[in-house]
Amino acid sequence: MNLRMFWLFTAFVVAAFATGAQATDPLPSWNNGQTKQSILAFVKNVTTSGSPGFLPPSERIATFDNDGTLWSEQPMYFQLFFALDRVKALAPQHPEWKTEEPFASLLGGDVKQTLAGGEKAILEIIMATHAGMTTTEFEKIVKDWIATAKHPKTGKHYTDMVFQPMLELLAYLRANDFKTFIVSGGGIEFMRPWAEQVYGIPPEQVIGSSVETRYEIREGKPALVRLSKLRFINDKAGKPVGIHWHIGRRPVLAVGNSDGDFEMLEWTTNGPGPCLGLIIHHTDDKREWAYDRESHAGRLDRGLDEGPGRGWIIVNMKEDWRVIFP
Amino acid sequence: MNLRMFWLFTAFVVAAFATGAQATDPLPSWNNGQTKQSILAFVKNVTTSGSPGFLPPSERIATFDNDGTLWSEQPMYFQLFFALDRVKALAPQHPEWKTEEPFASLLGGDVKQTLAGGEKAILEIIMATHAGMTTTEFEKIVKDWIATAKHPKTGKHYTDMVFQPMLELLAYLRANDFKTFIVSGGGIEFMRPWAEQVYGIPPEQVIGSSVETRYEIREGKPALVRLSKLRFINDKAGKPVGIHWHIGRRPVLAVGNSDGDFEMLEWTTNGPGPCLGLIIHHTDDKREWAYDRESHAGRLDRGLDEGPGRGWIIVNMKEDWRVIFP
Repeated sequence: MNLRMFWLFTAFVVAAFATGAQATDPLPSWNNGQTKQSILAFVKNVTTSGSPGFLPPSERIATFDNDGTLWSEQPMYFQLFFALDRVKALAPQHPEWKTEEPFASLLGGDVKQTLAGGEKAILEIIMATHAGMTTTEFEKIVKDWIATAKHPKTGKHYTDMVFQPMLELLAYLRANDFKTFIVSGGGIEFMRPWAEQVYGIPPEQVIGSSVETRYEIREGKPALVRLSKLRFINDKAGKPVGIHWHIGRRPVLAVGNSDGDFEMLEWTTNGPGPCLGLIIHHTDDKREWAYDRESHAGRLDRGLDEGPGRGWIIVNMKEDWRVIFP
Repeated sequence: MNLRMFWLFTAFVVAAFATGAQATDPLPSWNNGQTKQSILAFVKNVTTSGSPGFLPPSERIATFDNDGTLWSEQPMYFQLFFALDRVKALAPQHPEWKTEEPFASLLGGDVKQTLAGGEKAILEIIMATHAGMTTTEFEKIVKDWIATAKHPKTGKHYTDMVFQPMLELLAYLRANDFKTFIVSGGGIEFMRPWAEQVYGIPPEQVIGSSVETRYEIREGKPALVRLSKLRFINDKAGKPVGIHWHIGRRPVLAVGNSDGDFEMLEWTTNGPGPCLGLIIHHTDDKREWAYDRESHAGRLDRGLDEGPGRGWIIVNMKEDWRVIFP
């Protein structure tokens, strides 16, 4: 070969190697270290034919919490921002809210006072804003809101506050024939309208809290109507139950970030075969938020104490993640 | 070519054509006719790129009733045979059953008298036999029973009383990127242990009736315990609700055989795009059973009257199916 061809050939080889090196890192937003190596080793173990931990694809079930695990959850759960916006939008139809709590405080602009009513107040707000319409109508309301609403601190769309390293982990697992599920305390119908586009997770793989729903004929057409009655809270000990009802088998990988995920990780990591539990620890107050034992959203206390002894990996967002948002 | 080569070549061509002809018929157990052509035309329409009815694979959701649609249901639902066998197995631990109905009649061998107690009696038997154990224990009980129990009339294993034409339809749909779901009034945990092996439908695509389930720590290990309390009856107007909770989108194809499937077909065939509803009509008293409006199991009355006007296809088992059991 002549000199020109030699250089062309060399450039080709270098390019091929560079591409190859990139292709071998499925998690580029994860810094190299123990956490990343543990994830890669687990996936290699369960997907390598002949390996002692090999699992057939049907057994490769991975479950992910949503708030604080796949996207941020500060200064409060994003679904609560949605509910507050709905109260404002619906206020003209509810003159009584001007004097009734928790709506009066909220419409007066005092969110702190609104939330001081605790779970009871939040439930009242959710029921007033998440029920009474058909499932098709609710889906449209969520889609319109998620496309336009912005986070008060970052100014970003909420779907731009998902975690890039987790998007890579989801894609990496699916490329290795895992089925990825969301298992969240949030509303199942609040997540489904955008989870497929944002996370690549279809509606049938989203598990969450729900209200009772009734089938009826409205103006000659069948409809599913959302009722003002809680059906199921998919949190804490409810998570393994929700997993069982929807999936019907035990996951082998579970990722959470709060004590609401404790039982999901406990259930997952007590199976008969290989398993992996991950807890996302919010440690980066510059790029995101830093909180754990004292936080009202995403409180992480027991998991920090007991997780390491149970073999769960505590992901340190500040050190383990090269970038946070896409 | 010489004569020998000519014959070899001819044999090859004939074999190739025969294979080709077979490969072009994905439903060999369905007799040629309007029913089969309608199914083939529907699948071609929704899977042909550029066709007016084209659906992306994510929208290709197909739901199937189980009892009477995927397998037989006479002289009574097969799950009831399971429950009766469980009563006999558990009787030594329940001396009180010797005098208490509906158990006394049953243990005395009078199944007719047992079932005369109606839904209340059946529910009592289900709760006495389907609850109180962990989900893992129940799965093993079902697997052991389904592997050994035999139908009193045919002498076949129950899983050999599935319908060959439906197995072909399930496989044909999946080969065309449909996701196939069971949506049955039967117990979700009664079907899951064998549905994947028999129908190719994984546990996460099985929807059924369920009992309440509690997460707890038993002897230091987490367990899911089945409670004696009905959680959800996935029948009639419950089917669209169960479909919505599990799948989160409307099916485009639904197959049932009784009025318990009416609302599922109604919901499916009122969507915005192409859709297909099928009702399996049991018309063959020689090869299976013939029943409809008066049957206690799988009663089909309103569906026969209203189905054709709604565009649903009534499958005539006697005429449309070349074979019934595999």
